[in-house]
Amino acid sequence: MKILVINCGSSSLKYQLLDMTTETALAAGLIERIGEAQGILTHTNHPDTATETKAVREEPIADHEAGLRLAQELLADPQVGVVAAASDIQAVGHRVVHGGEAFKASARITSETIAAIEKTIPLAPLHNPANLTGIRVARELFTDAPHVAVFDTAFHQTMPPHAYHYALPYEYYEEMGVRRYGFHGTSHKYVAEEAANLLGCPLVDLNLVTAHLGSGASICAIEKGCSIDTSMGMTPLGGVIMGTRVGDLDPGVLMYIADQKGYTVAEVDRILQKESGLKGISGSNDMRDIHSRAAEGDERACLAQDMFFHRIRQYIGAYFFVLGKVDALVFTAGIGEHDPLTRERCCEGLEAYGLLLDHEINQASRGQARETSKSDSPVKIFVIPTNEELEIARQTINVLNL
Amino acid sequence: MKILVINCGSSSLKYQLLDMTTETALAAGLIERIGEAQGILTHTNHPDTATETKAVREEPIADHEAGLRLAQELLADPQVGVVAAASDIQAVGHRVVHGGEAFKASARITSETIAAIEKTIPLAPLHNPANLTGIRVARELFTDAPHVAVFDTAFHQTMPPHAYHYALPYEYYEEMGVRRYGFHGTSHKYVAEEAANLLGCPLVDLNLVTAHLGSGASICAIEKGCSIDTSMGMTPLGGVIMGTRVGDLDPGVLMYIADQKGYTVAEVDRILQKESGLKGISGSNDMRDIHSRAAEGDERACLAQDMFFHRIRQYIGAYFFVLGKVDALVFTAGIGEHDPLTRERCCEGLEAYGLLLDHEINQASRGQARETSKSDSPVKIFVIPTNEELEIARQTINVLNL
Repeated sequence: MKILVINCGSSSLKYQLLDMTTETALAAGLIERIGEAQGILTHTNHPDTATETKAVREEPIADHEAGLRLAQELLADPQVGVVAAASDIQAVGHRVVHGGEAFKASARITSETIAAIEKTIPLAPLHNPANLTGIRVARELFTDAPHVAVFDTAFHQTMPPHAYHYALPYEYYEEMGVRRYGFHGTSHKYVAEEAANLLGCPLVDLNLVTAHLGSGASICAIEKGCSIDTSMGMTPLGGVIMGTRVGDLDPGVLMYIADQKGYTVAEVDRILQKESGLKGISGSNDMRDIHSRAAEGDERACLAQDMFFHRIRQYIGAYFFVLGKVDALVFTAGIGEHDPLTRERCCEGLEAYGLLLDHEINQASRGQARETSKSDSPVKIFVIPTNEELEIARQTINVLNL
Repeated sequence: MKILVINCGSSSLKYQLLDMTTETALAAGLIERIGEAQGILTHTNHPDTATETKAVREEPIADHEAGLRLAQELLADPQVGVVAAASDIQAVGHRVVHGGEAFKASARITSETIAAIEKTIPLAPLHNPANLTGIRVARELFTDAPHVAVFDTAFHQTMPPHAYHYALPYEYYEEMGVRRYGFHGTSHKYVAEEAANLLGCPLVDLNLVTAHLGSGASICAIEKGCSIDTSMGMTPLGGVIMGTRVGDLDPGVLMYIADQKGYTVAEVDRILQKESGLKGISGSNDMRDIHSRAAEGDERACLAQDMFFHRIRQYIGAYFFVLGKVDALVFTAGIGEHDPLTRERCCEGLEAYGLLLDHEINQASRGQARETSKSDSPVKIFVIPTNEELEIARQTINVLNL
């Protein structure tokens, strides 16, 4: 069974075609600079395997429809295609960033689904319209296939009210949907399932803390398989420190800056989204760059990484206390998977709470989902490569009962 | 030795005269509605003792000087006074909310001190000018006594940079002093010292988490007697949920509300300061009221208290992980001292982390500094009545080498 997964941005579109019998990617592609003078499509067959082949097309790509049509042609190309015909694709799964409170799970796309996603646009004014464009275009090109929307927020809809409410006037929740939604749900869910596999134990019997640490980052407290708290809030700006995003803040700081600098809300927003986080402190949002500068004694680079570790550690501690008893701590995404120093510094000195990192394994190991704690660690520490596309494809199959 | 402690607000002034041989209050007073048509002075001799007597004066109190002069008269009154003459007061300690980075400890008040406090006014535009008024007036009335400023922020000046910096553009720190300062320092320091007494162990050998839970609330991580992190930030609006204050927030929420409602910074500020917290959720900022409504099944009251407990629990967990090993958790201030349910709910299910609350003792005990954990609890849980006036008086003596 072949499932196409689409993640559509405002001027880009990522796709992956998965063979769900083996749960591997047959092809993956990225379409960029849609609507610009020169567009780029990078298409890879059998990515990350010995038979990987790449095709790059540079040409004007007028709109998302033109881009996806190009991808469709490559996927079913008589020479290089991985399917005989586009109709071999049995279903299409779409990443949708914000499902608001309307979507507590993935949903088959119908006109009602689309209308409900449209209603959540105020909560994700940049992402959801782009995601909807992807859905509209893909439904026109893959007419026979059923389409499914998989939401970044859905996994967190199990949070109890005391975790998702903000201590603001209650009517803001009722009138404007102001509450914690959380993001990266697809990733947290995926690595939680993988952790259960590693532990050889049903997910419903486990308490986990999952740390998705990429350029965006969030931590999640998972009780018996259900998200009960997460660090991102109503927007993906909250929580831990990220590449360029500030994370949680004393709101007094924000008002002080707006007041002192005479900034508009839009200006403050740009600074907190794009000029803050690791970049605000060190000038760089690339953790490898920060590490190498820190190793050379660069003070700001040292500060940026110490702040990053400190906040993650605080969230891990907070969620250990929210859960009471934790079976495993999971690191995933770019930094979580590939940066031994982050794992080291987030776990060090926490033996009293059951976290015994194996320093050698932590340094050495790469690639597969693996344990990096000592064999006698009361709380297991795992590094699990995330795979949001695979999770979207799995959920697409689930929703459609394929 | 007799020390006068002054805490001056914009239209009120609190004072307490302490006999430091016994560390007891000889008199305490509150002057309210300064500058209004009718002012009130409530003066109590030997408060909270068998010989307590109270005097109330209702008359116009033109300004802080007039108010403090009234208090001075009562303190040295031939009939009811507790001192023979105002000159018996050996020193005056002043509470000052914000010491910025200039004050890492309490300081004898000189014209240089006053100039340095004036420089921090932008960081505490409501509090510091009022505190300075108190200092000016008191120096005129108690000319012979040396005066000392004791800062709410000073105790937290030991925080490491990774704890006090925000992940904002670094120049905001350099240009505008944007960083975490923390508050309630006098209280956190006082209860930490009392906890060391209860443990019979020098404070420098202890790691503590202190929870000051009043209408304002903050949590502090104390390592070997030094604050290394605290929940309040640059302003007292950050951290846990408070009576009417929101605490930490995803800044995206703030911008969403400002945008949707068309609010100015000043309007948002008022809402986050006065209309949020427990009040925003339940309509009340009084925890006793919230508990009694919750007991009757009021949903919003239940939600407000659950949110309050949840956030405190998260901060306690975060600071346990920041410290690595903790000797005691201390509850203080109005709610911390008098609300068994808060202590119960913040500690329950945390046996894995060494917190074993003794439920009976927790319910029953009142008044004195005391242990509420089981005798075999690896981490002690204490309830310690705070006494900021006594701490200010102690520090006044220290600074002056009296």
